[in-house]
Amino acid sequence: MNIQNILLGHGSGGKMSHELISELFLHYFDNQILQNQTDSAILTVNNNKLAFTTDSFVVDPLFFPGGNIGKLAVAGTVNDLAVSGAIPMYLSAGFIIEEGFPFQQLKEIVKTMGEEAASAGVKIVTGDTKVVNKGKCDKLFINTSGVGVLPDKFAGISLGENISAGDKILINGEIGAHGMTIMAARNDLKINAPIASDCACLNMLIKEILDAGIQVKFMRDATRGGVATVLAEMVKGKKFGLQIYEKNLVVEDGVRGMCELLGFDSLYVANEGKVIMVVPQNQAEKALKILQNHPLGKKGTIIGEITTENPGKAWLNTVIGGKRIIDMLSGMQLPRIC
Amino acid sequence: MNIQNILLGHGSGGKMSHELISELFLHYFDNQILQNQTDSAILTVNNNKLAFTTDSFVVDPLFFPGGNIGKLAVAGTVNDLAVSGAIPMYLSAGFIIEEGFPFQQLKEIVKTMGEEAASAGVKIVTGDTKVVNKGKCDKLFINTSGVGVLPDKFAGISLGENISAGDKILINGEIGAHGMTIMAARNDLKINAPIASDCACLNMLIKEILDAGIQVKFMRDATRGGVATVLAEMVKGKKFGLQIYEKNLVVEDGVRGMCELLGFDSLYVANEGKVIMVVPQNQAEKALKILQNHPLGKKGTIIGEITTENPGKAWLNTVIGGKRIIDMLSGMQLPRIC
Repeated sequence: MNIQNILLGHGSGGKMSHELISELFLHYFDNQILQNQTDSAILTVNNNKLAFTTDSFVVDPLFFPGGNIGKLAVAGTVNDLAVSGAIPMYLSAGFIIEEGFPFQQLKEIVKTMGEEAASAGVKIVTGDTKVVNKGKCDKLFINTSGVGVLPDKFAGISLGENISAGDKILINGEIGAHGMTIMAARNDLKINAPIASDCACLNMLIKEILDAGIQVKFMRDATRGGVATVLAEMVKGKKFGLQIYEKNLVVEDGVRGMCELLGFDSLYVANEGKVIMVVPQNQAEKALKILQNHPLGKKGTIIGEITTENPGKAWLNTVIGGKRIIDMLSGMQLPRIC
Repeated sequence: MNIQNILLGHGSGGKMSHELISELFLHYFDNQILQNQTDSAILTVNNNKLAFTTDSFVVDPLFFPGGNIGKLAVAGTVNDLAVSGAIPMYLSAGFIIEEGFPFQQLKEIVKTMGEEAASAGVKIVTGDTKVVNKGKCDKLFINTSGVGVLPDKFAGISLGENISAGDKILINGEIGAHGMTIMAARNDLKINAPIASDCACLNMLIKEILDAGIQVKFMRDATRGGVATVLAEMVKGKKFGLQIYEKNLVVEDGVRGMCELLGFDSLYVANEGKVIMVVPQNQAEKALKILQNHPLGKKGTIIGEITTENPGKAWLNTVIGGKRIIDMLSGMQLPRIC
């Protein structure tokens, strides 16, 4: 790998991140669990399966319509566990705080974390606080790691090994709200858009789907890199492809306006409360109903399906009748959105 | 709590940290596991006990004699698991990297983490990378969280509930090396001291002690806040006290010189490879021999004992025949040593 310096794109969740992960971390931390590159690591401890995951949050600004860094830190890790089929149980919280940070803001963030954890049914059981000199970090960074119990019957979800042609692809609602909200909230842009982050813990929604007996074959939350990156990753190197329909993607007017104004493609914009699910064709309508009956899935849609054609490729059927390939985000679309 | 702004002292591991933890985190993240305030959270999952812990590392400089931030990040979390009596098994690694950070340095740090994890018998199974704009963090911060299996028979170690008068207090060697090495390594000091960090994974050493049937009643690694803070915490609010003997504390000449030069008390200086153990009186000599036969415990000593006198207090018997109380570090002795 011929990298001289780390660039913003290496943290984007797109192609450059993948390159860094593959050639650096997978090389030196070589083990099968990590090689699987699932949202959560799947551990076997005393014959029980556990899911284990970590995320650092550096979002700027710390407070935004729909949430704050604390809500994001809880929801992000809860969702990484939940999309693995696990029941999220325990979180850690590591704070890196800039000297001089207002205590009231920290209190509000910590309070939000407590509330969000309680409503998701998880406990924050261990933590760490580091304070660095003024100017040595930007206000506040939070790391959360999480542990969940993974029922044996759901152990295959995160690898997606059972995906087959004809399976339907669902999402629980509108896309792009988180990323565009963060953009709008940045002081230097002075945009006052009527949009809010979709940041939310999805574990209860996912539990309803699984409890209903839907044979979920794959799930992933569409965060950094957006829906496009999840779709591109899902088919990469596989014997199947997929196609989705632009008309089935819900984009709120405010988000669409922001995207047009700033030249973003909503398919690549981060969400923090959206899960993409692959389910058998004959269960798709049932799954959709469950989504739509849940407050976090009201605008859920079936966005497309797995295909035998174009193996390894994800295609978008546009509203004007065109077709284009969905590739992974290359480099950085938007820094520090989570 | 009447705090206006977060100060460096809130991340010191001393009194101000304790205040922040008690009044903020314990309040909003209220649950019994966290309330126990053990080095690792003790979880019960499917009737098995697990230890779970997290630490963020912000050490400055990133490279120092005896290690680098990567070695520290692995050893710190492995040790937090091991002193709980758990067998460390899995780590997560979350990187926050400043844009422009040299790839070669990152590679060296990641390589060290891989080697350190391998030699400690743990796997780094999940990770996350965030890159922030130049100037928004200081080079590199790493969070590691860890999961270990806790045999039922060792579940009481982290709470120290079986400590009783007469028990002996041991340490596996010289103190203060890590903190003073970091001080010496800071460019702005231009001190060239012949000392190196003691940074090391202690799980194999601890395993030897436990495997030998030593009934360890309490263990803690003496990191931020040093040996003094561990001792003060150990007796705080308890019906027993403790006394230690200054003559039994090993301080290397280089560390002693640095401490004298800069006005530090080695008892409060951070270590990254030192564990304090409380064992029954009749097993103390056996435990000491095991320590001394291990490469990481060659300079181990019995430093003192648990007493019925002075409940709640830790006393130091000085070499010149005096006695003084050992209190928790108040505020910040030395920022960013881990």
